[in-house]
Amino acid sequence: MSTLWKSRYANRTLGLKSSAIRELLKVTQNPEIISFGGGLPAPDVFPVKRFEEACHKVLSEHGSQALQYGTTEGYQPLREMIARNLARYGIVATIENVLITSGSQQALDLIGKMLINRGDRVLVEAPTYLGALQAFNVYGAQYVTVPVDDDGLITEQLEASIRSGVKFMYVLPNFQNPAGVTLSEGRRQQLILLADKYGIPIIEDDPYGKLRYEGEHIPPLVVLDRENVRRDNGFTLGNVIYLSTFSKTLAPGIRLAWIVAPEDVITKLVQLKQAADLHTSTFNQYVAYEVARDGFLDQHVRLIRTVYRERRDAMLHALREYFPPEVTWTHPKGGLFLWVTMPEGTDSQALFQAAIAEKVAFVPGDSFYPNNGHEGGRHMRLNFSHSQPGQIFEGIRRLSVAVKMQLHANHVAH
Amino acid sequence: MSTLWKSRYANRTLGLKSSAIRELLKVTQNPEIISFGGGLPAPDVFPVKRFEEACHKVLSEHGSQALQYGTTEGYQPLREMIARNLARYGIVATIENVLITSGSQQALDLIGKMLINRGDRVLVEAPTYLGALQAFNVYGAQYVTVPVDDDGLITEQLEASIRSGVKFMYVLPNFQNPAGVTLSEGRRQQLILLADKYGIPIIEDDPYGKLRYEGEHIPPLVVLDRENVRRDNGFTLGNVIYLSTFSKTLAPGIRLAWIVAPEDVITKLVQLKQAADLHTSTFNQYVAYEVARDGFLDQHVRLIRTVYRERRDAMLHALREYFPPEVTWTHPKGGLFLWVTMPEGTDSQALFQAAIAEKVAFVPGDSFYPNNGHEGGRHMRLNFSHSQPGQIFEGIRRLSVAVKMQLHANHVAH
Repeated sequence: MSTLWKSRYANRTLGLKSSAIRELLKVTQNPEIISFGGGLPAPDVFPVKRFEEACHKVLSEHGSQALQYGTTEGYQPLREMIARNLARYGIVATIENVLITSGSQQALDLIGKMLINRGDRVLVEAPTYLGALQAFNVYGAQYVTVPVDDDGLITEQLEASIRSGVKFMYVLPNFQNPAGVTLSEGRRQQLILLADKYGIPIIEDDPYGKLRYEGEHIPPLVVLDRENVRRDNGFTLGNVIYLSTFSKTLAPGIRLAWIVAPEDVITKLVQLKQAADLHTSTFNQYVAYEVARDGFLDQHVRLIRTVYRERRDAMLHALREYFPPEVTWTHPKGGLFLWVTMPEGTDSQALFQAAIAEKVAFVPGDSFYPNNGHEGGRHMRLNFSHSQPGQIFEGIRRLSVAVKMQLHANHVAH
Repeated sequence: MSTLWKSRYANRTLGLKSSAIRELLKVTQNPEIISFGGGLPAPDVFPVKRFEEACHKVLSEHGSQALQYGTTEGYQPLREMIARNLARYGIVATIENVLITSGSQQALDLIGKMLINRGDRVLVEAPTYLGALQAFNVYGAQYVTVPVDDDGLITEQLEASIRSGVKFMYVLPNFQNPAGVTLSEGRRQQLILLADKYGIPIIEDDPYGKLRYEGEHIPPLVVLDRENVRRDNGFTLGNVIYLSTFSKTLAPGIRLAWIVAPEDVITKLVQLKQAADLHTSTFNQYVAYEVARDGFLDQHVRLIRTVYRERRDAMLHALREYFPPEVTWTHPKGGLFLWVTMPEGTDSQALFQAAIAEKVAFVPGDSFYPNNGHEGGRHMRLNFSHSQPGQIFEGIRRLSVAVKMQLHANHVAH
């Protein structure tokens, strides 16, 4: 042990729980295990051929620029493309409102760095995305939680939480990770009004918005905020920062995401990003632009929707088939995940061990609560995008064996 | 202005000076300006064809893995290759000692995050790499500086500075950015002994080590530390963290660098990196591995050395030809930069404006000192890697016009 280093570590809290998950997920490297654990897109729909053509084009036409240092803000044609794409969803943004980041995780890190002083309280959904908790933990965030139900964040419980004092709110309105639920339009309106009433900014994380398998598109918070709130304090874009990514629509291995924010906020984030990694890979930005352009992104998203819808349906079908009646789950209208709730008293960590013995994996629910909250003990997150339908059926069958054993053990113990 | 956001910014210091530089350097986008400002590699030696072949191979053979999420530590074959390469320089490292980062800037950010509590003092060379100051500033670093001369950091002045209380030391022993000087072997030994005596860890930043144009290779600090110091406190690798990168040998646009450190330090850095950007682009890591393998990296470095040596010589020649005798400069044995010292009283910011009027650019020296130190006022950093020899001659001629005007104005004023 290099004690010299250890004694010099700064006082930064880490999500230790999350590194426990990393260890757990290593177990699932075993190819015999069917994993519903990760948040992985299906590799069988990666547009590999299109990437090959794009790499060829970028290197033969723009080799010198694509391999060189670039600006911190990002590759201009890509930012323009993103701004145009946002406009289709009613998000009014120019290139000056768009910052390219090295994946959404970096967007969360930069936002944490920009906003959080040690001890600041951040309002999050319970459960919420564990990567956001990890990013904010580093800066010493404390958390205020508001539970979700099938219509997303329960805004009826929001005002009291806001009044307890929070720096900003972090929400995933569409097909939330981990619960798979979607914030209803009515609640979006309520959220926006309360945010405005108390002057609390919102971080809207929308990695899955394009992956809707049923129902109607609901306008994002950043649009409702702009439409509904009349402010006299000179906002140009409003008090919602909007995040999205190519990880779920093109490929996560290129680490490309973006932040949409008022211009002066972008300026601040650019300074922080410059200190964090100078800029995101120029090469990947050129390649993603060539991959996505001329309507390919839309066409490819249609394919992903078809494939993932089938997998979601397979998982819902298998759950109905195999799981005991005292277990319930969400019905996601899009995204990658669903959320299973077991009877009070179930220990999802023990269930995880039992599941591994049956050669199937998931992420135990407690990982998605700040402060390793025990609320998560009876939940599990299941990913349905990564496995093919046949595997999903077999995996859910195996998991049902572990669940039944666990419920039985529980029953005996009480 | 979105005042709501501004009022919520955390108390993090930024290198404001550095954003001033960004503004200055925007001026140099003008193609009529010959820029010695950036730290850009020569795009004409990027191995574009080899990148094309690598992309084709990676996508056709490993498309599903290369476009998928990867581990935070990095792509295993790439880490193995780096460990093998380090061994050739006497650096004893296994894959467990190597973490892939999104450029060296991220390595500096993660190290700052790991080690710096607000107010901690970091010992740096004066002048030093401005990206390191930016990275450390964010975490509230204070600085203790030790000047450099032609043999690098003046270790004779080191002990008093260490005794004033520092958390760690940050040094660039080879062809330092910005001064272009190299730390002599004798001084490396002194530095190591003092670091050991006072238990002060060292960050050794070595982006240019392979780009030596004359003289003998000098062992890195991480090797001398291991060889010379007998410790009884159980170190496995020692108290030097070593950084290097592909930015100056393959291409900066792929944003690939690495940290070499004791295993438990890597574990800590992995947790911080996971929260910062999950992992570095899987695709770029696969591609860089294919580009670098089978001896290509060595072969390509030989080419770069030939090209950059010629450019360095052109700049040294042009400086002797055009610059007035009261101006001096360093003679870099490698790397990308040389450092010009003008007579006392010269204002490098005013000189910058005069130079822009002559259509030539450089980075004013004060940018490379913490706290915007006035020590830098009479210096300029010149990059010789990015321009071809003919341009270098013309650029130095233009710059000499600005310098002579400035010296004359100075003379008249005093």
